[in-house]
Amino acid sequence: MQENLDDVVRKTASERMTEQRVANLQDLMTYFDPGLAVDIGNFVLGKLYSRSVIPWKTRQLCAIAALSVLYRPEQLRGHIVYALQAGATKEEIGEAIIQMAIYGGFPAAIEALKVAKQTIEDYSASGSD
Amino acid sequence: MQENLDDVVRKTASERMTEQRVANLQDLMTYFDPGLAVDIGNFVLGKLYSRSVIPWKTRQLCAIAALSVLYRPEQLRGHIVYALQAGATKEEIGEAIIQMAIYGGFPAAIEALKVAKQTIEDYSASGSD
Amino acid sequence: MQENLDDVVRKTASERMTEQRVANLQDLMTYFDPGLAVDIGNFVLGKLYSRSVIPWKTRQLCAIAALSVLYRPEQLRGHIVYALQAGATKEEIGEAIIQMAIYGGFPAAIEALKVAKQTIEDYSASGSD
Amino acid sequence: MQENLDDVVRKTASERMTEQRVANLQDLMTYFDPGLAVDIGNFVLGKLYSRSVIPWKTRQLCAIAALSVLYRPEQLRGHIVYALQAGATKEEIGEAIIQMAIYGGFPAAIEALKVAKQTIEDYSASGSD
Amino acid sequence: MQENLDDVVRKTASERMTEQRVANLQDLMTYFDPGLAVDIGNFVLGKLYSRSVIPWKTRQLCAIAALSVLYRPEQLRGHIVYALQAGATKEEIGEAIIQMAIYGGFPAAIEALKVAKQTIEDYSASGSD
Amino acid sequence: MQENLDDVVRKTASERMTEQRVANLQDLMTYFDPGLAVDIGNFVLGKLYSRSVIPWKTRQLCAIAALSVLYRPEQLRGHIVYALQAGATKEEIGEAIIQMAIYGGFPAAIEALKVAKQTIEDYSASGSD
Repeated sequence: MQENLDDVVRKTASERMTEQRVANLQDLMTYFDPGLAVDIGNFVLGKLYSRSVIPWKTRQLCAIAALSVLYRPEQLRGHIVYALQAGATKEEIGEAIIQMAIYGGFPAAIEALKVAKQTIEDYSASGSD
Repeated sequence: MQENLDDVVRKTASERMTEQRVANLQDLMTYFDPGLAVDIGNFVLGKLYSRSVIPWKTRQLCAIAALSVLYRPEQLRGHIVYALQAGATKEEIGEAIIQMAIYGGFPAAIEALKVAKQTIEDYSASGSD
Repeated sequence: MQENLDDVVRKTASERMTEQRVANLQDLMTYFDPGLAVDIGNFVLGKLYSRSVIPWKTRQLCAIAALSVLYRPEQLRGHIVYALQAGATKEEIGEAIIQMAIYGGFPAAIEALKVAKQTIEDYSASGSD
Repeated sequence: MQENLDDVVRKTASERMTEQRVANLQDLMTYFDPGLAVDIGNFVLGKLYSRSVIPWKTRQLCAIAALSVLYRPEQLRGHIVYALQAGATKEEIGEAIIQMAIYGGFPAAIEALKVAKQTIEDYSASGSD
Repeated sequence: MQENLDDVVRKTASERMTEQRVANLQDLMTYFDPGLAVDIGNFVLGKLYSRSVIPWKTRQLCAIAALSVLYRPEQLRGHIVYALQAGATKEEIGEAIIQMAIYGGFPAAIEALKVAKQTIEDYSASGSD
Repeated sequence: MQENLDDVVRKTASERMTEQRVANLQDLMTYFDPGLAVDIGNFVLGKLYSRSVIPWKTRQLCAIAALSVLYRPEQLRGHIVYALQAGATKEEIGEAIIQMAIYGGFPAAIEALKVAKQTIEDYSASGSD
């Protein structure tokens, strides 16, 4: 059972996220508490991000929406990469963010658009698409 | 051109939203400034909510995500109805909200789940689905 | 000096605020710590709300702006009364709030408009204007 | 191992929280997804709330601090009960909240004080202390 | 009618805002959707920022209040420039921000004061006042 | 009495905070209004931070909790130093922050952990512990 969970965690990290970003987050939490870092990884990657009730691309657009109105530029960057990997286009990502001006205000949406533009350009330049 | 915009506004209100909710919001803004109420309705319904870059159902799931982390129960209710009208299931709406516990915390997600449960039950009881 | 401060506190409460609201807030804080309740009253009423660098009406419009985007309906009500007492019109209060849709989103602005409409109607009904 | 986790979850719910509140939250999540409800309960109660790096009372004062500045009255109520059960006094709870006026503003702190006063009075009336 | 709106947009941009900042925001939105960029500019500059129900200087003090408690340093900078252009003094801007410590907490107000100090010094150095 | 307050302010600044940080904050507020800078220092340091209803270390953990969920990295840094000076360990600070993922979401908690790691490493390197 525990092995199974490990497999799910690894699969989610490699197929849906980016292994480098996951490793960085694990390192940060391990600095404070190694055991808790594992528990959190198991829960978020093994139980939540591995689900398929809604498509992964839609899930990432929802994450982008939330991180835009919450004004969390660092995490927004990571989820825009996940959305691009899942096939979201520049237009779809921009649309999800601009709509957020209505719910969370233009200042938050504008900063999110800046992060999105930079992330999309970096992603294209790296030949990942 | 202006007639065109009026048509788009009316079409968006009747097909994608609920006319009663739109009328209530217009009445509230009209109390303070009738002209501005029209300008805002034209912009939000005529220019933003009439777009189709991402599917209307996905757009509503993004709205639900944002309104959950922002802890805006009143507006959340309205957008859950729009999502149900667009064919979203109880499971999809619940999934979009529970994921928000990760980005905006469990207290906001739990309150959003309460609103969603009540709204879905009212919607079913009214024979609208 | 201390007597002076007491006078300023009393003057601010009676001329710029409403004595009932100030008393309610003092009672609440006194339940937890009587000494701190006095210190806070002295600071907020005696040092901050007694200032005149910007006009009291403008100060209240700024407070209304902030409380709208922060989604704090209870305190918003109090400051709308102070703004009305200071001569602000329905149109000015509505304008300050609607502009906030741009900075903090429409859901927060709409809830603030609802509070403002109710407060203005109650204020008019009480014959205070 | 799984039995062990179940035991920890049950122990945390009965000793540190209130079983009724835990059951209500589980019921709400179960309405949307029974499996996820178990996963979340296992993580929050089994992995996080069962820890002892900082004393449970201190942990609850931190929770009260966060829920006060986030303006989450519903969840605040629950954590004030947990703090009372852990031996926190009215003065300590009031102190943790009033300090929050500095970080999150007076409106949030005042609403939190209202919730705290009501919760403490209800708790005393129920003979739980 | 459409020409009229274009004129209002241009007049608002040149008289009340700074053309460079407006152009930067338009460029950003155009990267994602050229048509929507025009619609948003028409609404915000043509319909909202061109109004005169409250004086432009007061409107900018309200914007500064909201952007301070929302902790949006990037947009705050732009609106402090608009306030200075409208004749607001260092003392008035500082007063509007410091009052926000009461509603949104000292950390947000302190960061806003830092942005204000830097913006005012840059503005004076550029010989704009 | 006024001398007494000055003494309390000085004692709080030197024993519980860091004089450099207090001086920087005073300088910033003095730029806008020298008298108000003194009033605020007297209230926050003389009346609030000098209290002892809850231990100073617990008070700092509560501050860290609030500043984490509010996403205020600049002020968080200062309060982590105060917590370290008060004897809090890396594990206790990490624990207070990680718990905040539950109330304010993981993005805010992760950014707070980054600030905490950097601050703790700088503090250790400076030989202060």
